[in-house]
Amino acid sequence: MSTETTPLSSTPRTTLRRHRERGQTDRTALYAVLDTGLICHLGVVSGGAPVVLPTAYGREGDTLYLHGSSANGAFWAADGQRVCVTVTHMDGLVAARSVFSHSVNYRSAVIFGTASVVTDEDERWQALRLITDHLIPGRWAAARQPTTKEMAATAVLSLPLTEASVKIRTGMPKDEPEDHALDVWAGVLPVAVTFGTPVPDPELREEIPVPAHIRDRVG
Amino acid sequence: MSTETTPLSSTPRTTLRRHRERGQTDRTALYAVLDTGLICHLGVVSGGAPVVLPTAYGREGDTLYLHGSSANGAFWAADGQRVCVTVTHMDGLVAARSVFSHSVNYRSAVIFGTASVVTDEDERWQALRLITDHLIPGRWAAARQPTTKEMAATAVLSLPLTEASVKIRTGMPKDEPEDHALDVWAGVLPVAVTFGTPVPDPELREEIPVPAHIRDRVG
Repeated sequence: MSTETTPLSSTPRTTLRRHRERGQTDRTALYAVLDTGLICHLGVVSGGAPVVLPTAYGREGDTLYLHGSSANGAFWAADGQRVCVTVTHMDGLVAARSVFSHSVNYRSAVIFGTASVVTDEDERWQALRLITDHLIPGRWAAARQPTTKEMAATAVLSLPLTEASVKIRTGMPKDEPEDHALDVWAGVLPVAVTFGTPVPDPELREEIPVPAHIRDRVG
Repeated sequence: MSTETTPLSSTPRTTLRRHRERGQTDRTALYAVLDTGLICHLGVVSGGAPVVLPTAYGREGDTLYLHGSSANGAFWAADGQRVCVTVTHMDGLVAARSVFSHSVNYRSAVIFGTASVVTDEDERWQALRLITDHLIPGRWAAARQPTTKEMAATAVLSLPLTEASVKIRTGMPKDEPEDHALDVWAGVLPVAVTFGTPVPDPELREEIPVPAHIRDRVG
């Protein structure tokens, strides 16, 4: 519960806003956090109060895309409004000798910006491809693509990646020197997101094998 | 990108608010999602815009506790304000025959309420114990406990679990019947958070073994 990591965001940050001179390094870190995540948490203000929703996303260059049902009020409410999108990877639990120095190893990207509902049909199509292939690379081309009706049922939000902070904690606990004499185990419990063996739909025809892009995703 | 799961929160929800008759089942589901999570995402409104921060938490009964540095403005800004805390478990990627029917298996709890900075020292102590033991059960008793100075450097927020929605998606893709004829693999890619082998601090004295509570956590 040190100031270093509680909340996780209280760690030193790499702020992308208005730091052009170090932009490339920051961009690389930002892209790495985003591109290896599965889902994000979207924060919108609704009726003056925050709402935080987990959702899928995709990235192209410096644009983040989210999608939702056309019937989802939160997406339309976000159009033209400031939103916050956070992607967090948990990498480890850091067990220190003192309770206070306990921490978490993680990588996070917190993105602030004004969201826009995408109306251009080509961009909407491209965004949905990005989001689909973000979760399972190669999946878009392998599956039946959207009909006009399905496209109409889907809303797409875009968010520019101009204002973001990336924070990363790695390594061992940082106990006070005097605590090293304590008989307390200290170290890191690694945490990772892992994939299990793909489970075919029971209704899948037997002659359809697990395709390469599914095997590749599971690793 | 079906309406079912995009954003994830667009799935049918179990709303706890004002549904006393089904309260017990809902409570059980809510507790299960919260108690098996590692971190939450805290949404606060700052300057009219949302901020979403990953942070640790703990639960006692129908109270959620978060902690942060006393120097963290977001925590003080949240005092007396409406916040949203979301805990999400990713359980699987659902690969459907059509892009549109792709989905995600997940469990989420979205909690809305007015946060309060806890000032009672006994409650603060208890909250920090809960948060510490949430991440690593048994850790509080095993580690050196906070000093008065460390307590003063720590802020604790409480949030009542009175208004929450729990959403869970499980199972296989739900393709349109006509898509079942397609030569497209369909099924679920299971996703899980897993622990690796504990890594001792290189500065740890060699005679200190990995304790039972660490072994139990890693499983």
